[in-house]
Amino acid sequence: MKVGIIGLGLIGGSLGLDLRDRGHTILGVSRKESTCQQAEATGAVDQANTNLSLLSAANIIFICTPIGLISNTLEQLKPYISQETIVTDVGSVKTPIVESCETLWTNFIGGHPMAGTAKQGIEAAQKNLFKNAPYVITPTQNSPKNSIKTLEEIAKSLGSIVYTCSPENHDKAVAWISHLPVMVSASLITACLHEEDPLVLKLAHKLASSGFKDTSRVGGGNPELGLMMAQYNRTALLRSLIAYRQQLDEVIEQINTQEWESLNKRLETTQKGRSHFIKDNFE
Amino acid sequence: MKVGIIGLGLIGGSLGLDLRDRGHTILGVSRKESTCQQAEATGAVDQANTNLSLLSAANIIFICTPIGLISNTLEQLKPYISQETIVTDVGSVKTPIVESCETLWTNFIGGHPMAGTAKQGIEAAQKNLFKNAPYVITPTQNSPKNSIKTLEEIAKSLGSIVYTCSPENHDKAVAWISHLPVMVSASLITACLHEEDPLVLKLAHKLASSGFKDTSRVGGGNPELGLMMAQYNRTALLRSLIAYRQQLDEVIEQINTQEWESLNKRLETTQKGRSHFIKDNFE
Repeated sequence: MKVGIIGLGLIGGSLGLDLRDRGHTILGVSRKESTCQQAEATGAVDQANTNLSLLSAANIIFICTPIGLISNTLEQLKPYISQETIVTDVGSVKTPIVESCETLWTNFIGGHPMAGTAKQGIEAAQKNLFKNAPYVITPTQNSPKNSIKTLEEIAKSLGSIVYTCSPENHDKAVAWISHLPVMVSASLITACLHEEDPLVLKLAHKLASSGFKDTSRVGGGNPELGLMMAQYNRTALLRSLIAYRQQLDEVIEQINTQEWESLNKRLETTQKGRSHFIKDNFE
Repeated sequence: MKVGIIGLGLIGGSLGLDLRDRGHTILGVSRKESTCQQAEATGAVDQANTNLSLLSAANIIFICTPIGLISNTLEQLKPYISQETIVTDVGSVKTPIVESCETLWTNFIGGHPMAGTAKQGIEAAQKNLFKNAPYVITPTQNSPKNSIKTLEEIAKSLGSIVYTCSPENHDKAVAWISHLPVMVSASLITACLHEEDPLVLKLAHKLASSGFKDTSRVGGGNPELGLMMAQYNRTALLRSLIAYRQQLDEVIEQINTQEWESLNKRLETTQKGRSHFIKDNFE
C-alpha cells in the first residue's frame, strides 16, 4: 500500500519506520523542509515533502499533527485526494476530532495508538514503538466497514493490541486513566506549594521520596499536554473530576469523623481495585 | 555502647545489623521466641530475648514496634531501666508519640528513619538500609541536650542524612509528602471504580498504563499503613487534605469555565514546583 503520513514527529516517524519495514511505500509531509530531509535520511519515509499534493497517490493517510491542527489539516488535504482514500489520525482525544473530521471526509476513521516516549520529534522516532501497546480505533455508524478493517490490519501489523469502541467511550476511559491522573497529581503539587510555613515546606522538599515522586510525576509533566487534555476532553474530564471530588470528600469526612472501619474498607477496596488496572498490562 | 532494640522487624533488624557492624553490643527484644532466634542467627543482635529485663544494661533503646504499641511498650519498659537510659522510637508520626512518651520518660527523644522496603519482618532486614536516607529527630524543649547529640551521632553513623525539627513540623511535612499522596492516590482508584458504564470501566482497565500505574501506586498499598497514617497524623493530614481540595476545586473551576490561560499557568507552576521536591534526593 501507499501510506501517507502528515506530521513527522515521534509518532509519525515511528509509524513510517515500521510500515516501511512491512513493505509499504511511505509518503511523508512536514511543514519543515529539514524534517523532511531527516525523515528520508533515517528511513522513516520513502519520500517526503512540504506539500500535501505528494499524498494524492496514498491509499491511507495518517494525520499525526498536534490535536488542534488535525481537522484543519484534513480540510487542506481534501483537494488532493480521492474518495477511496482512507484518512485516520492519532490524536489522544477522539469525540471532537471524529465529529469534525467525519463531516469533512466520509472515509475518516479515528484512531489512537497509545504509545510514546518522553522524547519528541523525528529524532526520537523508533521501530516497534507500538508493539504490545493498545491501538484504539473509534469508528462510528457512518464509517465504511472496509476502511475499518484496513486500519485494524495495519494496527495489528505494528504488533499493537487493537481495541474498537465509540469515540465517547474512548474519551471517558482515557479521562479516567490518563487525564484525571494529571489533574489529581498536579493538584498535589500545587497544594504542597501552598504550605505557608517555610520551615515545613523546606522539610517537605527534603523528605519527599518515591511515594511523592510517583504520585506527582504526571502532574509535573508538560503543561501543554495537560492543557490540551483539558481543552479537547473537557466533558469527560469534568465528569471524572466531579466523581473524584466526591471520593475525596468521603475520605476527608471519614478521617474527620474518625470512621476508621469505613476508611479501612475503602483502602482495602482500592488495594484490590488497582490490580484490575495493572495486572493485564504489566508487573 | 549497649544498644537495645524492641521489635525485631525490618527496621529493628536492619538497625541491629548496622549498629553491630559499628562495634555496638545489640540487645534485642521480640514478643516471639522464633524471631529472637532468627535475629541472633542473622547477626542482627548479640543477644535476644522475649523479656524486656534484658535491656536493663542498655545505654540507648530503640522502640521499633508498630506505632500503636510504642507508648505502651515504654510503660512496660520503665521498671527495668535507669534515668540515664535514652529511649527513642522509629515511628512515622511524631506528635502524639512524643507527647505521651515524654510524659512517661524524661530521657525520650522521638525519631523517624525514613527508609524501608516493600518487605517486612526480620527476614527482610538488611545492612545499609538507612544509608543516604533522611533520619528525622524531633526533640522538644524538654529533651536532654546530650541525649539529642547521642541519637544524632548514631543516626549519622548509619550514613543517614539527619534533620532536626519539632514533632509538629515533622508531621506536617510527612502529611504533605507521604500521607496526603496516599489519600489522593486512593481516591483516584475509588473514583475510577465508580464508573457506571461497564464498557468504559473495562476499557479503562485495558488502557491503563504507566501514568495511572504511578499515580495510583501508593493508594493501592497496604490498607493498614494508610489507616495508621490517618489515625495518628489526623490533624496534619486533614490540614493537607483541605488545602488539596481547594486546589482541586480551582482546577475544576478553571476547566469548567474554560480559563485556559490560568490552567496553563497552574500547570507551569506544578512543573517547576515539582523539581524542588525531587532534585535534592534523586533523578
